[in-house]
Parts: sequence; structure tokens; C-alpha cells
Amino acid sequence: MIMEKKDISQVLPATVKALTKCNVSSVLAECQHDGEPMPSGRVLSDVVDLVRAIVFPGFFGDAYKDDNTLEYRTGLCIAKVYDLLCEQIQAGLCFANADCDCKSERRKKAKNMAVEFIESLPELRRRLLTDVVAMYDGDPAAKSYGEIISCYPAIKAIGNYRMAHKLIEIGVPLIPRIISELAHSETGIDIHPGAQIGDYFAIDHGTGVVIGETCIIGDHVKLYQGVTLGAKSFPVDENGIPIKGIPRHPILQDNVIVYGNSTILGRVTIGKDAIIGANIWLMEDVAPGTKVVQKKNI
Amino acid sequence: MIMEKKDISQVLPATVKALTKCNVSSVLAECQHDGEPMPSGRVLSDVVDLVRAIVFPGFFGDAYKDDNTLEYRTGLCIAKVYDLLCEQIQAGLCFANADCDCKSERRKKAKNMAVEFIESLPELRRRLLTDVVAMYDGDPAAKSYGEIISCYPAIKAIGNYRMAHKLIEIGVPLIPRIISELAHSETGIDIHPGAQIGDYFAIDHGTGVVIGETCIIGDHVKLYQGVTLGAKSFPVDENGIPIKGIPRHPILQDNVIVYGNSTILGRVTIGKDAIIGANIWLMEDVAPGTKVVQKKNI
Amino acid sequence: MIMEKKDISQVLPATVKALTKCNVSSVLAECQHDGEPMPSGRVLSDVVDLVRAIVFPGFFGDAYKDDNTLEYRTGLCIAKVYDLLCEQIQAGLCFANADCDCKSERRKKAKNMAVEFIESLPELRRRLLTDVVAMYDGDPAAKSYGEIISCYPAIKAIGNYRMAHKLIEIGVPLIPRIISELAHSETGIDIHPGAQIGDYFAIDHGTGVVIGETCIIGDHVKLYQGVTLGAKSFPVDENGIPIKGIPRHPILQDNVIVYGNSTILGRVTIGKDAIIGANIWLMEDVAPGTKVVQKKNI
Amino acid sequence: MIMEKKDISQVLPATVKALTKCNVSSVLAECQHDGEPMPSGRVLSDVVDLVRAIVFPGFFGDAYKDDNTLEYRTGLCIAKVYDLLCEQIQAGLCFANADCDCKSERRKKAKNMAVEFIESLPELRRRLLTDVVAMYDGDPAAKSYGEIISCYPAIKAIGNYRMAHKLIEIGVPLIPRIISELAHSETGIDIHPGAQIGDYFAIDHGTGVVIGETCIIGDHVKLYQGVTLGAKSFPVDENGIPIKGIPRHPILQDNVIVYGNSTILGRVTIGKDAIIGANIWLMEDVAPGTKVVQKKNI
Amino acid sequence: MIMEKKDISQVLPATVKALTKCNVSSVLAECQHDGEPMPSGRVLSDVVDLVRAIVFPGFFGDAYKDDNTLEYRTGLCIAKVYDLLCEQIQAGLCFANADCDCKSERRKKAKNMAVEFIESLPELRRRLLTDVVAMYDGDPAAKSYGEIISCYPAIKAIGNYRMAHKLIEIGVPLIPRIISELAHSETGIDIHPGAQIGDYFAIDHGTGVVIGETCIIGDHVKLYQGVTLGAKSFPVDENGIPIKGIPRHPILQDNVIVYGNSTILGRVTIGKDAIIGANIWLMEDVAPGTKVVQKKNI
Amino acid sequence: MIMEKKDISQVLPATVKALTKCNVSSVLAECQHDGEPMPSGRVLSDVVDLVRAIVFPGFFGDAYKDDNTLEYRTGLCIAKVYDLLCEQIQAGLCFANADCDCKSERRKKAKNMAVEFIESLPELRRRLLTDVVAMYDGDPAAKSYGEIISCYPAIKAIGNYRMAHKLIEIGVPLIPRIISELAHSETGIDIHPGAQIGDYFAIDHGTGVVIGETCIIGDHVKLYQGVTLGAKSFPVDENGIPIKGIPRHPILQDNVIVYGNSTILGRVTIGKDAIIGANIWLMEDVAPGTKVVQKKNI
Repeated sequence: MIMEKKDISQVLPATVKALTKCNVSSVLAECQHDGEPMPSGRVLSDVVDLVRAIVFPGFFGDAYKDDNTLEYRTGLCIAKVYDLLCEQIQAGLCFANADCDCKSERRKKAKNMAVEFIESLPELRRRLLTDVVAMYDGDPAAKSYGEIISCYPAIKAIGNYRMAHKLIEIGVPLIPRIISELAHSETGIDIHPGAQIGDYFAIDHGTGVVIGETCIIGDHVKLYQGVTLGAKSFPVDENGIPIKGIPRHPILQDNVIVYGNSTILGRVTIGKDAIIGANIWLMEDVAPGTKVVQKKNI
Repeated sequence: MIMEKKDISQVLPATVKALTKCNVSSVLAECQHDGEPMPSGRVLSDVVDLVRAIVFPGFFGDAYKDDNTLEYRTGLCIAKVYDLLCEQIQAGLCFANADCDCKSERRKKAKNMAVEFIESLPELRRRLLTDVVAMYDGDPAAKSYGEIISCYPAIKAIGNYRMAHKLIEIGVPLIPRIISELAHSETGIDIHPGAQIGDYFAIDHGTGVVIGETCIIGDHVKLYQGVTLGAKSFPVDENGIPIKGIPRHPILQDNVIVYGNSTILGRVTIGKDAIIGANIWLMEDVAPGTKVVQKKNI
Repeated sequence: MIMEKKDISQVLPATVKALTKCNVSSVLAECQHDGEPMPSGRVLSDVVDLVRAIVFPGFFGDAYKDDNTLEYRTGLCIAKVYDLLCEQIQAGLCFANADCDCKSERRKKAKNMAVEFIESLPELRRRLLTDVVAMYDGDPAAKSYGEIISCYPAIKAIGNYRMAHKLIEIGVPLIPRIISELAHSETGIDIHPGAQIGDYFAIDHGTGVVIGETCIIGDHVKLYQGVTLGAKSFPVDENGIPIKGIPRHPILQDNVIVYGNSTILGRVTIGKDAIIGANIWLMEDVAPGTKVVQKKNI
Repeated sequence: MIMEKKDISQVLPATVKALTKCNVSSVLAECQHDGEPMPSGRVLSDVVDLVRAIVFPGFFGDAYKDDNTLEYRTGLCIAKVYDLLCEQIQAGLCFANADCDCKSERRKKAKNMAVEFIESLPELRRRLLTDVVAMYDGDPAAKSYGEIISCYPAIKAIGNYRMAHKLIEIGVPLIPRIISELAHSETGIDIHPGAQIGDYFAIDHGTGVVIGETCIIGDHVKLYQGVTLGAKSFPVDENGIPIKGIPRHPILQDNVIVYGNSTILGRVTIGKDAIIGANIWLMEDVAPGTKVVQKKNI
Repeated sequence: MIMEKKDISQVLPATVKALTKCNVSSVLAECQHDGEPMPSGRVLSDVVDLVRAIVFPGFFGDAYKDDNTLEYRTGLCIAKVYDLLCEQIQAGLCFANADCDCKSERRKKAKNMAVEFIESLPELRRRLLTDVVAMYDGDPAAKSYGEIISCYPAIKAIGNYRMAHKLIEIGVPLIPRIISELAHSETGIDIHPGAQIGDYFAIDHGTGVVIGETCIIGDHVKLYQGVTLGAKSFPVDENGIPIKGIPRHPILQDNVIVYGNSTILGRVTIGKDAIIGANIWLMEDVAPGTKVVQKKNI
Repeated sequence: MIMEKKDISQVLPATVKALTKCNVSSVLAECQHDGEPMPSGRVLSDVVDLVRAIVFPGFFGDAYKDDNTLEYRTGLCIAKVYDLLCEQIQAGLCFANADCDCKSERRKKAKNMAVEFIESLPELRRRLLTDVVAMYDGDPAAKSYGEIISCYPAIKAIGNYRMAHKLIEIGVPLIPRIISELAHSETGIDIHPGAQIGDYFAIDHGTGVVIGETCIIGDHVKLYQGVTLGAKSFPVDENGIPIKGIPRHPILQDNVIVYGNSTILGRVTIGKDAIIGANIWLMEDVAPGTKVVQKKNI
């Protein structure tokens, strides 16, 4: 026979105490301000859903197209994005100890930032439509533009990236990273919001793609699944901590294609029209128009 | 002090106008029919959940086994799948401008297609159970069949593939691609619903697996994580657009095993009983029974 | 004109019969006990969410920090975890035909196990905070500890692993595997709960990482995306079925770094301070302090 | 010891059979058409909530006033009311075997009726605001118009009545009765939608008020709780069934007040400016300006 | 300027202590057993909804009629009612300290009671359909049987009464009272589940109707709004506490009609075919066939 | 054939314009402040549910009693009540144009008021328990205290009244009226929050009870269904508008009983121990100890 060794009624209060007393772990405490809201992945996921519904109405959000109410629905979605973003940006500013201390100034700053994001939505749609066109033109399995929008994970990943990158440009802390990780989780495509990426960007399949913070990618570039555009190494300071913000990821010029599972590391430049074959491991510049293929590996 | 530069009350109406007026982007307009429902990823995700609950009762859906009500629950689940699929197939037909223009004919066609899918459910279970057996037999970490069904992402990915492939056979447009992308997002395994795959199919770990549209895979085949069965290149038409539908992906005959992160490209044939080692990059036929391993890469 | 060939009213009852009659497939029947609850991925996902909210209050769960109610919220979250785990562990024991047949003994056993898990929560937080520190110290793109907790998928994957591993230690069947697969789906990082992993563990990007059941990993180890720590081969019994439980995965000693997409197979030992470069394929021991890099592959 | 006398597994199938076989009770069968939707109290309750939110924005629905989005919110609410009403009116027509047999004609008829209702919404608000004014002016406990709108059950009951009466005028069957019963349940005030009621109508407290189908009520009338305006008797046909539609309820001319728990029965006329005291029982005409009080009853 | 006099952070813990320490008020403690579930109005409300959907399919629950799935839906609804009732009856038995102390015996007893209730569902429908017929036949405003079922509050009140009365007969404590109060709240009709009521029972409008615990009502009886069938007085024991269970409410024989707002008090008998007019106050027997009307009260 | 006379696409924009342009009806505009939240019946209904769960744990809210977590649950419920009330009181102050104009002062004032309410919760429970005892002692149909708490609508109505009255004492505008109307809708019992009511207050059945704003009710008073304690008439100002706040409702001294459907109007005093029979209509003082019964009315 099995005895109930300890009862939950004894263990519960002790565990609660242990977890709430020692809560003041320096790591946890650093970025929490009592009584202030914190950024919420769940809310930002709603923001992403709303922006998708605004940019591609019918494909995301309510699954129908109705010209009678499009204006009303768009208006409400944008107003909702504005409200949620105001709140999340404030939380992000607070989290990052951003320059303004005063709550009401932080609120004003957040509002200005959210307004700037709202204004960029038409441009966001324009750019994403170039990506749709690029993916359709480059994939024999795609039957229509609509199939790309409905099905291709890259559209979600690049969409989140473009939102997040805009927020980086506006100066919003933390929130962009959460938004890009939402797409990473959804698609397996990990694009740092700090990267700079041109129009007509295509990713096929996509799982395992990594695009680092200081990458610069031109127009009409195409990547396949498992491609890493990473850092080779990074200088550390006197404490052995990596120095933040140094350019350390590849530059891909216009029309570059990188096939599946290839890895390009460091601040190298892959020239215009170059093609990098599958499963390549590369840490050097590649001249424009070059085709790099693997030596037989068997 | 920070000023509120522009107020949302000014920006909102302008942005709404910009997004609803220019909505008639040719890309977006192409596949939307006013007043018609569009395919919905959310609804199709419910369909997938229901089919899983039908095929593996207790493991998915309501987490219990109750013989008293199994018939009632199964009946309702199937009826629900039928209703949702009718609606989604109609939306898919409309989206794809499929051959029949008339709404009532489209409705009838959708009903016929949904009925045909419903009829195939017992066969779907039979095939998936062969996959369960294959994965149990090939994995020393698996403790029981039930663990495979409960935990292994490959069961979800292959399950969605088998549903989606059946829908392709029935002639349903678009919907199968959405269903396979749902599994891609959930598992990192990307199987194009057009591929042909035999019984007793096993995938271990699975993240990053890509199986292209024209692959043909025999019985008792096993793949590990990161394996790509892709296209090498594809002919383009006079406008530089890839020609759709040409066989361009590998054929894997019975009993083939491909280990982790290997890439097989093009319409090559991997013969019966062949074993392809890890991290291989391969664009040629492999004779039956061959074991391909990598040269030292360090 | 299209005829409705078969009506759902004919197909429905026949399909229901086919699926409920033949339900007694030996594969399905094996692990189901009539009237007993089965483990539920959905419920375990709630458990994971609650544990995250307990360990990192404000970052997960309710997105705010409020010292007034922290104790109450923590108390309720833990009580909820206890209740749900009791039920799920019972389901797991039943599923696995664990040693005790009697329902009330199974219930007692499950309670003891859940209590033991609850007691380990403060230690779980301590260990996860070492992982946070490791990831912050090793990543030039990370701006704060809080960014790691909020955004980095590895925190979710390692968190689930540490929960699941504790449950393995306690002797809970099946449930740990479901918990680790929840993180696999969310992050693309597949850590078997049987693996042994030290403090200050870091994974960057993470998609495609596979860590096998019998891996042993020291302190201050760091892995990049796509790294496989897998088995080379495994002995089979006289029926060709793999023998379960044999050590077959790598040992990584303290301070080892493995760069992106490298594969280490078999019971090999990677010595202290060794560095394995990107895209390496490795099946041999590596001496402490060694740096392994790839030969040029182009 | 208590034995389990019968098991649910025996009783369940028998009871299901009994309830589904004999389902073809003539009473139930009469108004159900297989495959056709039926009117739904739950959906109509949503319609009522939406109309309240349209008519009194901020007081019902989203609890805030925001001029930026009022137009969008109103637009969407009305579009939603239209959609739900189309569906419910169709169900009502089908239920009532209304004159048109053909489904597509029924659909058109329902659309026309719903459009007509939508057009009447501004007038609905105008009338309800007169009721608000009347209740404010007549109640020393009321502190503001807003308190009337927020709190007074009579606003809900009269609001539902005015919607339902409009639908009666348009010719919609059944739906109006369901709408008025929703308010009856919510407030205890039972106003038949067939009654004719003028502007500036006030009910205080209201529980137990009954206003019959053929009542005619002027402007500036006020009723207190428990007032019945009912029928005295009604002629029956040769089968003893009451003849439908005969005028049989009181007429109250302008400015009439009826105090609590009084009962007025039959097609009597209560003249202009008459006052009927509390707990009166009355079956005769009352001349204009008369004040009717009870004799001492103790 | 207004000061924050006391902070919630001081008041909260003190109030929590006050409410949880003194929780052992003898009144509250009496009927609570630690760790045992208590009866839940919310769950019983779901039971009522399910029973309505079983008895009147299409009118309640899913608003459509579909013969294909009626059997499945009915089966699941009944199984759900059984599960919920088992749990609630157990809670009721525990609450009432019913005769069996042992938990597993209580469970068996509850199962037997729930099975008995399930078996009575077809009879419940038969009786409720007689009530529908009675209300249709007696109301000139009713357009169809379906209108009665959809709209008339009396159907809900009598339905709940008939369920609750059956549970009383089976011996279930407390639960019947909660079920009848759910209808009281919904309709303003308060029928004690202990009352005995025949077939073809009609209530018009209904608000304010009170039917006491020991009433006996024959077939074809009709009541109007505000009718009280109450107790005149009741003997008290030596402590001044009313003696429970003594017959103290009226008996109404077949075909009796009681018009609006009349009050009948005490164990009097209203004979067959008697008619009691509106606003009557009555504490004596009434001979069969008598018509009682009020003297002029003005 | 039926034509679609007007299309919704024409009617929708016109109706939206009509409703949003003329929105500046003076009645609606009076109590709305742009951008400020308004009181919400839905939120206040949640507050009521939480307070019930705090005062009667196990009977309301989560239906179980668990001493392990009672403190945590109570703490969280109270914290939630505090948050919601702060917000609702602010909305109420804003709505009523209460004395402080400045938003931050209004916020402070609301916090103080909410804290004061929180502090009164233990006293609220004490008083409600006296009401429970009174109702148990006076009702032969009541089987236990617990039955009173679980089932009797009067507990809900008196509970809401006691909350609302406390808020009136604290000086909160509007919110108390909404809270009392929530109970009115739920129970048919209409108690104005301004009334003053002693301990051990009992209401039986309750539908139709009305207790006016300036009533004063002693201890151990009992009312039956349909009792009105109302105003006879009220002085009007020079514009014919009733003067607010004048004492105009009855005073009931200790131990008074009023039986069903009786009406007492005006500022009369019903002396200690008096009993008022059923269906009485009364506008005069009643001496202590008197028993008032109706003359025969037939």
C-alpha cells in the first residue's frame, strides 16, 4: 500500500512562501516595475492578427469579403491596433527604462509611436504584396497569389518582420522582438527585427531559417529552408560580455538565391545575382554573379 | 516634454481610406469574390481537430474513452466535419474559379466532395495505424503505441498530409495546402499534399523535413529531422515563370531510410532498402540496398 | 449539371459504424481503459502556462506585477497545477499500466508525485534563472534579462524540459513526453525529457535542435540552431525491435559550444571547453579544449 | 449497501430511441422543417444587445464613448443586426409557413424586411428618447437622463417592445414575440408586440405589468408595477377554441396614469387625463379626467 | 485636494484575514464539507438547457432540426445530463448529510438517482406537450404550438417544475429547489418542486405566480399572472420554529381557472370547474362549478 | 415574385449617418464625456458575482470548499473587486459630474471609495447571515441555512441592496442603482439602494416587491411577494418636475410582517409587531401590535 507521504496542505504554503519571498531575485526584479503593466505576448499576438486582417482582408480575420462593411471593419481594426499598441509600447518603454521617467510623458510618447505605426500600414501592405508576387513567380507549386497569402508561412514571418522592423525604426523597445518570435514559433523562421530587407523577398518552406540582427538584404532575394545568415564571432568587452550592436552578419545584394540548409557567417558580402547552392558553409565574400556549389560529400 | 505630434483622430480616417480605396490591388482582387466566404485557416484547424478525434478517440478531442457514447460522439464529429468541409470546399472552389460558375452547382459539387472525404475516414485510420506501428518499431525511446499517438509530431504531420492528399485526389483546390501548412506550423514538417506516400511511413523528430509536391515514397520508409526531398531546378516558360506540375522531386522506394539533415534534390530514384546517412547532399540515383555515408568533413 | 451522387444521410451511419465497430484495433485498444480519463495535451498545456506564470510572474500569465496580490496569485496557480497534475498523472499511470492496479492507490500515488513536483518549483526557478543569465551573457543581440525571458524560445523549451525531467525523476510515465513535445511544437527545439542537462544551459535560435534521451550535458553548454545530439545506431532484439534504454547519445562536458546545424551521433564524449563549428558531422570523441572546424566544402 | 440497480449503459440507448423515434409527435412536427434553421432566442438576444448599443452608444455594448470610431462601430453593429435578422426572419417565415414556399423567395422577402427594420432605427431612437424624458420627469428618485437609460428596466422592456412592434408592422412572424419575451424575462414587464403605444411612455418599477395584444395606448401614459391591461373574456369558435385577433384589451388615452397592481380588463376606454389608483379592479369605461380610487379595504 | 486615506495594500490582507478566519461562522459551516464539491447553480442551469434541448429539439439548444444527427445529438445530450446530474446529486446528498456516509456509497446512490431521472425523460416530454396544447387552446394570442414552446415563459417554468418534481420523487435533496429557482428568476413564476400538478397545466403571462410546497393541482387547470396559492399560517414548535412538511396550501381540482393577481391561502379546496375572478382574496373552500367574482372596489 | 426593393448597401451608410450625426441629441450628450469610460452593467454584474463568492464561498463562484486555498481565492477575489470598482466608481463620478473635475483627483477619490467598500465586506457578511437566519426561521419549506443561501432569491436581492446601500453611504453615484437593478432583473425584487433596512430582514418568494428610496425598515421585518412600499404622491416644483429627495415612503418598525400583494403608500408608520394581511391597500399609520386584515372582497 502507498502512503500519502506529504500532504499538499503542508507543501502549498511553504512553496508559495519560497516563491514569493525570494521573488526579488535580481534577475527578475531588474525589469519589473510594480503596478506597471508588462508587455504581453498574448496581446501582441492579437495585434498581429489584426494587422494581418487589415492588410489582407478576407484572408485573415473574418473569412469573407464584404465591400459594404470593409471601411467600418478596417476602421475598427485599426482603432483596436492603436489602443493595444499604445498600451504595449508603454509597457515596453517602462520595461526598457526608456529615457522618460514620467508616466504621462511615457504615455504621450507611446501614443506618438503608435500613430506613426498606424500611418505606415498602407506601405506595409505595398511591400508585402511585392513579397507575394516574388513567391508566386518563383514557385512552380504555387497556383495563385491567393494561395501564397493563405498558405505560405513565409508571408506570416515576413509580415511580422516588416511590422517589427517598422517599430524598431520608430524606436520601440522589446515589442519588436516579441512580434518576431511569435512568427518564429508559428513558422520556424527566425528573422531579427533589426535586419534590413528589401522588396520582393521570398522564403520557400522556411523552417530553420535564421536571419541575424545586422543583416542587410537587397531586393528580389530568395532563401530556402534551413538557411542561416549568422555571426561568425563577436568581440567581447573586458568582462567577457559580447559588445552589443556591432555589424556582424552577412550582406546579400539584389537577386541573390541561397538554397536549403546553407550557412553564411560573418560580415561578408554576397554579390548581386550570386547563387549559393544547398548545404554550403561559407565565411567569405562572394563576387556578383558567382554560383557556389558544394563539392561531392560522399 | 514630448508633444503629441499627430493625433490618431486625424490619422485614422486617412489610413482607413488609403487601405480601403486602394484595396483593389490586382493581387488581392484576383481571388476574392464579393459576398462569398473565403477559406478559413481557423475553421480548417477545427476540421483537423475533429478528424483527429474521430480517428484516435480519447487521444484527441475529449480525453476519455467511453464506449457508451462513442457512437454518438463519432456521429456528431463526422456530421460537423461534413458541414464545415462543405462550406470550406465551396470557398475553395470559389477561390480557385473552379469550373462551375453557378452557386448551386458549386454547392452540390462541394457536398459530393465532402461525402467522398467522409467515406474515406476508416481507410485514413487504417493507414495512420500503420504509421504508428512503424514509428514504434523503429524508435528505442518509444514506450508504447499510445505514446506515439499522444506525443509524436510526425503523427500529426502525416495525419494532416493523408487528409490533404485525399482531398487532392477528390479534386478540392487550395484547402489541402492550408491543411498541410497547419501541420507545418505545428510540427516543422512540411509535406506537400500532392506527394504520394505509402504505408508504414515514419519520421523521427521531424523539424525541418521538406517533402516536395511530386515526391513518390514507398512503404516502410523512414526520415529523420531536417531531411529535404526537394527540386533541383525547374524549367521556366518564355516569361521566366516556372512551369507548374512537372515531376521534379525524388522517388524513394520501399524500406529507404534517410538520416538527419540530408538533402536529396531532383527527380532521382533512391532504390529499395537504400540507407542515406546524415548531412548528405545528393542529386543522383542511388542503387537499391546501397548505404551512402559522408566523407569526413573535419 | 452535377448530381449529388451519395447523400450524407446514407454515408454517415455507415461510416460511424465502420469507425466505432472496428475501433477495437489492437493498436488503439492497448492503452485505453474504459471510463478512465486519458492524458490530455490541452490540459498539460494549461499546466505549462501556469508553471511559467509561477516561475516568471508578470512575464507569463497576467501581464503585470502587483506585490499586493502576488502571494494569492501564486497560491492559486500552484493549487491549480496540483489539481491538474494529480488528474494527469493518474491518467498517465493508468495509460502505462503502472504497477498499482487499484484506482484508489493510483490516486494516492499520483497525489504523492504531484506534491513532489510542487516542492521542486523553487529549484526549477533557480535553474531557469541560470539559463537566462547564460543566454544574456552569450548573445550580443540581447538587451536585458527580461528580453530573454519574454522572447527567447529556448527559455520555453528548456523550461518545459526541466519540468518534464523532474517528472521523469519522480517516475511519472508519458506526461513528460507530452510536455516536451508541447515545447517542440512551440519552438522547434526537441529535448527528450530523459536527457540530463546542467545549469547555465543556452540555446540560440534553436529551430531544429534535437537532444536525445540518454544525452548528458554539463554546465555552461551552448548550442545553436539545428544541432542534433543523436543516436548512431541501436542494437535490436531477436525480433528486430530496438532494445530500449541503452545509452546511445553524446556526452557534452562543461563549457562546450556547438555551432549551427552540426550533428553529433552516438555515445561519444565532447570534452570540456571544446568548440564544434557549424555544419559539422561527428561520430567520435573530441578531446577537452579542442576546436573542430569544417574543411572547405566548396 | 446500495446496489447500482440499472446501469446508464442500458438506459441510455433505450431512452435515446424513445425520444428520437416518437419525436414525430404531431405537436413538435408541425412547425419544424427538416434542414431549415429555427428561430433562436440566443441569436435574437444578441440582436437586442446590438440594437441597444446602436441606439444608446456607450450605455450598452462597449462601455465608452469615442467619437473617433463611433461611425465604424455603428456601421458594424448595424451590418451585424442585418445579417442576424435576415437569418432569423427567414427562420420565422419558414416556421410560420408564410405565403412564399420557395427558399430563394423567402430569402429575398427576409432581406427586404430586415432592410425596412434597419431604416427604422433612427425613429426607434427618437421614440425611446421621449420615453426617457417621460420617466425622468415623473420620478423624484431619478437623478439624470443617463440614470434612466442605464438602470431603468422599463427602458429595456419598452425598447424591446418598440423593436418588436416595428417587426410586426413589417409582417415578420414569431420573431417579435420572442423579442418581447426576452424583455419579459429580463424585467418582469410583459408587453405584447401587437399593442399600439404612443410617445413619452413611462413604466415605474414594472414587475408584473401585462399589456395585451390589442391594447391602444396614447402619449404621455404612465403605468406602475403590477398593472394588468388584459382581456375579460373572449369568444370561442365551434370547437371551443378562442377566435384569434378580436379587439379585447383596454384603450388608454393620452396622459392616463395607472397606479400599482391595478387591473383593467376588456375593451374599455380610459379617457384622457384619467387617474386610476392602486389595487383597483376595473372592467368599465372611465370618463376623461376622472380619478378612480379604491374604497377602504380594511 | 483629495488624499488617499488608506491604501488597498493595507486593507486587503486585513480584510482577507477577517473573512477567512471568521469563515467558521456556524451558519456557513453547517452545510459545507471540506474538499467536497457543492451544488452549483451554473451547472444546474446547463442541465436545464440540455433537458430543454432533449425535450424540444430545435426549439432549444442548436436551433435547427436535422434528422441525420438527431439520435447522436440526443445521445450526447443525455449522457451529458447524466454526468452532470451524478455530480450534482452527489453534492446535494453531501450537502444534506443524507443517510449514507461513505463517499463511494453516495456515488452509487447518485448514479442510481440520475439513471432514474434519465429514464423519466420521455414521460417528461409527454406531459410538457399536454401543457403546450393547453396553453395554445386557451390563448387567442397564440398563433401555433411552436410559438408556445419558443416564447411562453410558462413552458420554461413548468418544465423546470416537472424536472424538479421528478427529482423530489426520486429523493434528491436541494437540487430540485435550485432548479425551480432558476425558472423563478427567468420567468417570475415560483413553483415549489414539492407541489403536485396534473396534465394540461397552463399559466398565462405568469409573473408573480406563487405555488406552494403542498399544493395539489388537477388536470386542465389554468392560472394567470400574480396568482398566489399560499399558506395562511403554520404551526410552530416549542421554539417558535415552523413545523416543516404540514399540508398548508390549496387544492385545485380539475378545470379550475384563477384569474390575475388573486390570492388563495391555506389548505382549502377549489372544486372542479370553479372559476376565481381577478384580484380575489380567498381563504375558504369553493364548491365545484362556482364562479367567484370581486365586489366593486371603487 | 418578390423584388428586393432597397438594398442594404444603400440603406446602411444612410442609417449610420443618421444615427451618428444626430447622436448629439441633448439627452444622450448630457452624461457622456468623450474618451471617458462609462459605467458598465456587465462589469458590475461581475463585481456582484465576486462579492457573493467572497461572502458565501462555495455557494457562489467556484462550487467547492477548500480550506487550503480559501485565503488565496478570497485575496484574489477582493483584489479583483477593488480593481473593477475603482474603474466603475470613476465612471460613475464622471457620469454624475461629481465635484472634482480633475481626472487624477477623481481617480484618487474612486480609490478611497473602493477601499472603504472593501473594508465593509466582513460587516456585509455578518448582516447577510442574519437575513439567512431570519428566512430559515420563518419558512416551513426551508430545510437548512444552506438551502436559503443557495436558492432563495431574496438573499441575492438583499445582498445586492446591502452592497448598493453601502456604496450610497460612501457617496458613490449611479453605481448603486445599477447594482440594485441587476438584482431586480434576477429576482423581481426592486429595493432602492437609498432605503434603510435593519438586520434579520426576510422576503418570501419576492416577485413584485417594491421598496422605495426613503423607506425605513427595522429589524426582524418580513415581506411576502408583491408587497409595495411606495410613495403616494410627491410635490412638484414650479416646472411640474418632482422635487427630489423628500421622505415619501413608509416606515416599518421592528417585527412587522406584510403579507402578499399588499400596498403601503406614503410616509406612514407601521408600528412594532404589526401584521398587515394579504392584498391590503393602506395609506395610513398603523399602531404597534395591530393586525390589519381585508374585508371579504367577494
